[in-house]
Amino acid sequence: MVSPSPGYAITFRVETPASFSASSDVTVAIGETGAAITGLDVVGSDQQSMIIDVSANARGLRHVEKIKAKVNSLPGTSVLRVSDQTFVMHSKGKLEIASKIQLRNREDLSRAYTPGVARISTAIAENNDNAWRFTMKANTVAIVTDGTAVLGLGDIGPEAAMPVMEGKAILFKQFGQVDAWPVALDTKDTEEIISICKAIAPAYGGINLEDISAPRCFEIERRLREELDIPVFHDDQHGTAIVTLAALVNALKVVGKTMADIRVVVSGVGAAGYAIIRLLMKSGVRHIRATGRNGVIVRTEEYTDEHRIWLANNTNEEGFSGTLKEAVVGADVFIGVSAPNLLDGDDIAAMNEDAIVFAMANPDPEVDPEVASEHAAIVATGRSDFPNQINNVLVFPGFFRGLLDAQATDVTDDMMVAAADAIAGTITDEELNPGFLIPSVFDPRVLPAVSEAVKQAALDSGLVKNIDMDEDVMNNKS
Amino acid sequence: MVSPSPGYAITFRVETPASFSASSDVTVAIGETGAAITGLDVVGSDQQSMIIDVSANARGLRHVEKIKAKVNSLPGTSVLRVSDQTFVMHSKGKLEIASKIQLRNREDLSRAYTPGVARISTAIAENNDNAWRFTMKANTVAIVTDGTAVLGLGDIGPEAAMPVMEGKAILFKQFGQVDAWPVALDTKDTEEIISICKAIAPAYGGINLEDISAPRCFEIERRLREELDIPVFHDDQHGTAIVTLAALVNALKVVGKTMADIRVVVSGVGAAGYAIIRLLMKSGVRHIRATGRNGVIVRTEEYTDEHRIWLANNTNEEGFSGTLKEAVVGADVFIGVSAPNLLDGDDIAAMNEDAIVFAMANPDPEVDPEVASEHAAIVATGRSDFPNQINNVLVFPGFFRGLLDAQATDVTDDMMVAAADAIAGTITDEELNPGFLIPSVFDPRVLPAVSEAVKQAALDSGLVKNIDMDEDVMNNKS
Repeated sequence: MVSPSPGYAITFRVETPASFSASSDVTVAIGETGAAITGLDVVGSDQQSMIIDVSANARGLRHVEKIKAKVNSLPGTSVLRVSDQTFVMHSKGKLEIASKIQLRNREDLSRAYTPGVARISTAIAENNDNAWRFTMKANTVAIVTDGTAVLGLGDIGPEAAMPVMEGKAILFKQFGQVDAWPVALDTKDTEEIISICKAIAPAYGGINLEDISAPRCFEIERRLREELDIPVFHDDQHGTAIVTLAALVNALKVVGKTMADIRVVVSGVGAAGYAIIRLLMKSGVRHIRATGRNGVIVRTEEYTDEHRIWLANNTNEEGFSGTLKEAVVGADVFIGVSAPNLLDGDDIAAMNEDAIVFAMANPDPEVDPEVASEHAAIVATGRSDFPNQINNVLVFPGFFRGLLDAQATDVTDDMMVAAADAIAGTITDEELNPGFLIPSVFDPRVLPAVSEAVKQAALDSGLVKNIDMDEDVMNNKS
Repeated sequence: MVSPSPGYAITFRVETPASFSASSDVTVAIGETGAAITGLDVVGSDQQSMIIDVSANARGLRHVEKIKAKVNSLPGTSVLRVSDQTFVMHSKGKLEIASKIQLRNREDLSRAYTPGVARISTAIAENNDNAWRFTMKANTVAIVTDGTAVLGLGDIGPEAAMPVMEGKAILFKQFGQVDAWPVALDTKDTEEIISICKAIAPAYGGINLEDISAPRCFEIERRLREELDIPVFHDDQHGTAIVTLAALVNALKVVGKTMADIRVVVSGVGAAGYAIIRLLMKSGVRHIRATGRNGVIVRTEEYTDEHRIWLANNTNEEGFSGTLKEAVVGADVFIGVSAPNLLDGDDIAAMNEDAIVFAMANPDPEVDPEVASEHAAIVATGRSDFPNQINNVLVFPGFFRGLLDAQATDVTDDMMVAAADAIAGTITDEELNPGFLIPSVFDPRVLPAVSEAVKQAALDSGLVKNIDMDEDVMNNKS
């Protein structure tokens, strides 16, 4: 049976008789259903009755209904209201806009706004570089989505995507000190999304594409990279690929294998799978089998979309044809970004010695991690309740921090490899073991390592603005 | 000669000899140029030299150059750096994005982001009303501009418009607790601006159009009002019209005239002039002459753009033809939203007794306010350094606060009149006099008065969402 979870932290407002035992009767009743009581507050009382708030972690919504019925069955007792703390946390959204400056008086107002602001605007009109010096462009990224591939929920639309985008913006700020703003678009048209991104770009120092379904995400990213002078990054592709590469770098250290020699099977040829394969090849991996729903992608088949054609031409050099289960036989590494329960223990047992299994389908991995760990040397998942969580949060805040600090104009594979190496490098040789391949998202070493690596790679590439931010307009003129 | 201004607060970093008198020599020299010294700090020193920061208010940029030359002429002394405090204030922009919730640990993360956030997204996907309950839409407005009519600077483009839009966002927050986000668009195409606004609308509870040039602004506003279910407001039109009406309501109290009887001349038939005329007519004004660059708009002329045709058909019922100077003879009220120095003292003297003059061209009014006040009973301008500043900041924060609080789906003339009356009503009969028609932007009475009036007018109109925000999803389901 599932344990009670803080994801279902519920507060029950209950009216009880005004007796000494009434509130404990309620908590006992709730506890008997298997919920974990976390608090009790009396919020009102008179001669006849009491109003109490009982907080508890439940197992899920059906459990909540069961608790409610049980409490209502107690004599003279009724549930007035049920508050789900997860929903309360998201009430009216999670983001707000703050001013970096204070307007205390007329003088402040005349500098921050009219008439003083006209001088700033004029300076920018004369030299667009000043937008980096004197507008939020310097530190602000757009998180652009059309809501078509949100979490495991699929095409839920821009409104429903917003809580995820707002959460992402919080992570950008907390872990990267990057100001990121959700741009959730009510259109799925590739050309319209491209033209909107181009139109809004003046205010932003970068664009993070998010949860846009394949294959449109590839075209949108490619075109924006060509047509904009700010970096464009698709987190579902590159964030996932970078953190996967970071985990693989350290996993190979543990088992003593090399990129050039390993045989890798990647399950899932959507945005994430495609980007992972490209980045692995960039890092020296030579033997990759990419598997979709119809088995291994093979050169002799005909594919219609560009990215499958590319995979057919650039992976599976042996021309192997077969199912996923057939493909993993003898493989060193399994990387899953696909669907739950595609493999079982026998499949993992059939892999090469010291097998590495990254089963990242969420919430249910491609293979049960407990079962996989009986046969593999290393198991990682996308979940936070198993060791080795392969989590994009390790990447995107620091990656954009580095891009903004460098005033990068583009994103390159070298920057991605540098970010992966930086994440891998935060784990010292003394720390490294099969259960600790990659750092926690709360590890303070991650941001400086990733941002510095990306910044340096950007400067080395020369794809940067080179605007002197230390000098102000007056000195530039004189 | 112009006085030194805090708009030109400059810090000079100066290297001097290490003598007792060196720093006072510098401040004396700067003072002699007519600058107002505001501070002196020693930032470094050794046996040979000192580095000092002298802060002073200058008269303008030429004055700054003069100061620099004078300091450089002192023996052994040189200016190392000139920092303009207005530019420093705008460094890297004025806005940042903040989280309303804290992510302290894994548990917080699992509620604010994955996996917990999936439950919020699912609830919105099932019922779009939940976007108002659980996303920033509840309190967030887009400030949309194309940078074509910014301040008095004209078409300076989206990058250069950003400092103004960021400043506006700060005012929205400080004076209305509204989260407002700049959307500065790199397109001037009417249809593209409309489609972008529609595409980004899911994240916003309202749209404030800003500094978009006429006549495109009229079409964009009209279409968005028709096609969106959130309120759309063009501040350059309606903010100006509302605060002008508020000032006029109180000015008429002072001189004892009525809307129905006054003869009004409006100079300027762009966005602001057109909106002012419409709102005055809605408030009962019957006699209006609208004047553009070619004189009074008259029914017998042929006009090409819709809004001039409307003005020709709905104003100047006498069919008066002539120049602005001819039009104001005998008028009770002059309202200028046009260009500097179109009228002189003789023109104001030729108006009716107890004339009211609102000369709002910025920074230089249609008539010198000092000169006008010799002949008029009441003079107001758009400037902060004369009495009676007619300033949109009195309107838009409270107006949108009220719209959001009501979950309004549209903006009506009734809401605008209600806002104007509310602003006018904040000045008590005891306070009211020719030099105090409208409150200061810092007057704490303004926000509650305007927001409550707009909210009530919205609820009365029925054009509201009527989403119960007190109930959470669990209770709505049960």
